Amino acid sequence: MIKIYEDNDSIGLFLQLMQRRSEEDSKDALEAVEGIIGAVRKEGDASIKAFTEKFDGVTLEQLKVNEVEIEDAFSKVSSNIKNALEKAITNIEYFHKKQIRQSWVSTEENGVIMGQKISALEKVGVYVPGGSAAYPSSVLMNVIPAKLAGVKKIVMVTPPKKDGSIDSNILVAAKLAGVSEIYKVGGAQAIAALAYGTDTIPKVDKIVGPGNIYVALAKRVCYGKVDIDMIAGPSEITIVCDEKANPRFLAADLMSQAEHDKLASSVLITTSKTLAEEVNKQINIQIQNLNRKEIIEASLKNYGGILVVKSLEEAIDMANTIAPEHLELMIENPIAYLGKVKNAGSIFLGQYSPEPLGDYMAGPNHVLPTNGTARFFSPLSVDDFIKKSSYIYYTEDALRELSEDIMILAKAEGLDAHGNSIKVRVENE
Amino acid sequence: MIKIYEDNDSIGLFLQLMQRRSEEDSKDALEAVEGIIGAVRKEGDASIKAFTEKFDGVTLEQLKVNEVEIEDAFSKVSSNIKNALEKAITNIEYFHKKQIRQSWVSTEENGVIMGQKISALEKVGVYVPGGSAAYPSSVLMNVIPAKLAGVKKIVMVTPPKKDGSIDSNILVAAKLAGVSEIYKVGGAQAIAALAYGTDTIPKVDKIVGPGNIYVALAKRVCYGKVDIDMIAGPSEITIVCDEKANPRFLAADLMSQAEHDKLASSVLITTSKTLAEEVNKQINIQIQNLNRKEIIEASLKNYGGILVVKSLEEAIDMANTIAPEHLELMIENPIAYLGKVKNAGSIFLGQYSPEPLGDYMAGPNHVLPTNGTARFFSPLSVDDFIKKSSYIYYTEDALRELSEDIMILAKAEGLDAHGNSIKVRVENE
Repeated sequence: MIKIYEDNDSIGLFLQLMQRRSEEDSKDALEAVEGIIGAVRKEGDASIKAFTEKFDGVTLEQLKVNEVEIEDAFSKVSSNIKNALEKAITNIEYFHKKQIRQSWVSTEENGVIMGQKISALEKVGVYVPGGSAAYPSSVLMNVIPAKLAGVKKIVMVTPPKKDGSIDSNILVAAKLAGVSEIYKVGGAQAIAALAYGTDTIPKVDKIVGPGNIYVALAKRVCYGKVDIDMIAGPSEITIVCDEKANPRFLAADLMSQAEHDKLASSVLITTSKTLAEEVNKQINIQIQNLNRKEIIEASLKNYGGILVVKSLEEAIDMANTIAPEHLELMIENPIAYLGKVKNAGSIFLGQYSPEPLGDYMAGPNHVLPTNGTARFFSPLSVDDFIKKSSYIYYTEDALRELSEDIMILAKAEGLDAHGNSIKVRVENE
Repeated sequence: MIKIYEDNDSIGLFLQLMQRRSEEDSKDALEAVEGIIGAVRKEGDASIKAFTEKFDGVTLEQLKVNEVEIEDAFSKVSSNIKNALEKAITNIEYFHKKQIRQSWVSTEENGVIMGQKISALEKVGVYVPGGSAAYPSSVLMNVIPAKLAGVKKIVMVTPPKKDGSIDSNILVAAKLAGVSEIYKVGGAQAIAALAYGTDTIPKVDKIVGPGNIYVALAKRVCYGKVDIDMIAGPSEITIVCDEKANPRFLAADLMSQAEHDKLASSVLITTSKTLAEEVNKQINIQIQNLNRKEIIEASLKNYGGILVVKSLEEAIDMANTIAPEHLELMIENPIAYLGKVKNAGSIFLGQYSPEPLGDYMAGPNHVLPTNGTARFFSPLSVDDFIKKSSYIYYTEDALRELSEDIMILAKAEGLDAHGNSIKVRVENE
C-alpha cells in the first residue's frame, strides 16, 4: 500500500522528504575509517590481515584468490547461471562498445597541430560487497566498461566469508568479465590498500563499486589520491504513467525497487487516481508471495508515494525535479517524450522495458547516479575508465603571430616570467 | 639555479619529495569551513553579507554585479587587452567545439531501441579568486566549455575588493565569455551559496574554478550535493629534452611555471649534463629582470630539479611516473613520441610550443590535473558540463526472449521482486 498524494502542498512535502533520505553522517565512522587508512598505509598487508580477522572473523594466510578456488567456483555454479551471465556479458559489451571514444587531431594549414589523446587508465580497483549484497550482475557492470576502455589491470577486492571463501557466483562473474586479480579484503581497509598499495595489493588509479558506509567514507577520504566512481546515496525509481498503463506491471516495478533496502524510494506519478488505487490493490496481492516483503513494506511506507497530477507534462516536470536513478515512462509513444526528460540516470520506455531488464540484461549500465544526483552525475560508462591529454605543436611563425597577445595577457595578470618565455623565442638574444 | 641530480637514488628521492608537496590539511580550516557552510544554509544572504564584511572588509548592499559596473569595466580595460581576450576566445572555442559530443541511438532489427542521451547541465557556478590570483584567462577557460556544452545559466562568484568593486579585467572576460550573472562573494561562503542556493544566489549543479584552501575544502565538503571539477593540488611542469634543445628557452619555461607559487615544481629531464649546466646559467641571467624573482627562487630551490638520464626513453618513463600537469617535449620529432606519453595533463611539442602559449592562446584548456593526478584526471573540457542518460525500449517479444535469464539471475541474487516484475509481463494472470 502506497500513500496517494493529490494536492500540491502534500506533494511538495513528500518530494522534500524523499530528497532528504540518507544515512547518518557519523563522526565515529569517519574517525574509524581514518584510523584504518592510516594503519594500512603504515603496516600494509599485516594490518589488512588484522582487520580481516577483526571484521570478517577469519584468519587468512593468502589474500589473493588462487586458480583452484576459481575452478572450484566454476564447478559449483549451475550452467543456467553461467549461461545467463554469458548472455548478459554479450549485451553489456554490445551497448558499452558504442561508448568507446577516439583520440582526435586537428592539423592546421599554418603547420599547427593540436589534439586530444585518449588513454585508458592503467589500473582499476573494483569493490564488491560481501554477504547478501554480493551481486554478480554488479561485477559485470563495473568490470566490462573498464575492460572495453583498455584498462590492463583490473583488481577486484571483496570481503571473505567466515570460512575464508568468496561467493562462487561472484568469482565466476569476475572471471567471465575479465578481472585480472582478486583479493579477499573488504571495508575501508580494502579501499586503503587500493589507494596506497601494499606488498600484495597493487595501488590503482581509480576505485569503483558500491559498499557500506565505511567503504563509501573511505572512498571519499581517498578521493584525489585516487579517482572514485561517484558518491552514491539511497536509490530510487520514478514511474510516470498515463491511464492506460497496466497496474499489475506498475505494482511489480515499484516493489522491485523497494526490495533493495528500507531507504529505497518508489514513486509513481500518474494522471489517474483510479489507476493509483488499482496499483495499491495489485501491490497487496503480489506482495504476499515475495520473500523480501518486510523490506518492501518498510520502504513503500517510508519513501513510497503515488502522486496524482493534472497532465503528463506536469508529471515529467516532477520527474525532472526528482532526478531519479531509474525513470520508467509507461505511456503511449514514450519515445516522443524522451526530449522532455532532463534528469534521469536510466530511462525505461514503454510497458515492456521494466527496470530489472536493465539491471541484468539489456546492456546499459546499472551503476547509476542516485538520490537526485542525476542532475549532474551520469551512468558508469567507458568514459569513467579513460583519461584525456590535450596537446599542441606550434611552428615558430605561428607562435610569432600570437606572441604580442600572449605577452599582453601575461602582463595584465602580472606574470612576467610567462611573457618572458614567449619573448626569448621571438626576440633576438 | 636548479639542483642537478644524476644517480638513480638521488633522482628517486627527488621524485618522492615533489610528489609529497601539498598544503597542510588543517582540522581548524575544515571546522571553519563547516561552520560557514552551516551558517549559509541557515541564514542565506544575511550570512553571506556578514562573512563578506568579516573576510573581505566591505559592507555590501547588493551582492549582484550590475550593468553599470560592467560598462564601467569595459571603459577601463585597454583595447589591447580586449582584443587579446577576443582572440583567445576564438582559439579556445575552436579547440573546445571539437569536444562536443552527440547523443546516440541504436535501433535493432527486433524492434529494440537503446541509446545514450547527452544533455547539458542546467546551471553551473564558476569560482574566480580575488587579489593577485584574479586571472581573466582562467575565467575564459572555465566558462567557454560550459557555454559550448549548452549550459543555460553560468553563475560567477568572486570576492570583492575592499571598496566593493571587482577587477575590471575579470568583469570584461566574464562578459565576453558569456557569464550570465556575477555575484560579489568569495571563500567557503560562495561555495555554500552555489551548493545550496540563497534568495539571491541560485543553487547550481556543478562548481568549477580554483581557489584557496577554504574554497578547496568547501568544494570537497559539498561534493555529492553538487558536482565539482577536480581536487587541485600544487602545479608543475616537466620538460623532457634532448641535447639540441635551446637552454634559453628551457630556462624561461621552467621559470614561467615557478613564478606561480612556492609549491610549484619545475623539472627538466635531459640526457645532457652540459645542457643542464647551460640552463642554470640562463636562469641566472634571465631571473634578474623578472618581477617575481623571489617566488621563482624559492620554488626552484624547494621543488626544482634537473634530472640527468641515459636515454630519451628513460626520460619519458620518468615523466610518466611524475604524471605532470604540463609536459614539454623539447626534442626532435616530438610527435613521434606522443604515443609513449601515458600520463600528462597537457603536452607541448617542440621548441615553439611553450606552456604560456597554452595558458593563454593556443586553444586547449589550462585547467589541468595537478600533482600527479594526470594518472586519472583530465583537462577541463566540454565533457565536464554534460551528463548522460541511458535509455531502452523493449518490445514484448524481445523481453520474453530474455525473461528466463533475467529471472535466473534475479533468483541467484535473492531479489525475487525483480524476477516478479518480469514474471507479471510474460505469464498470464
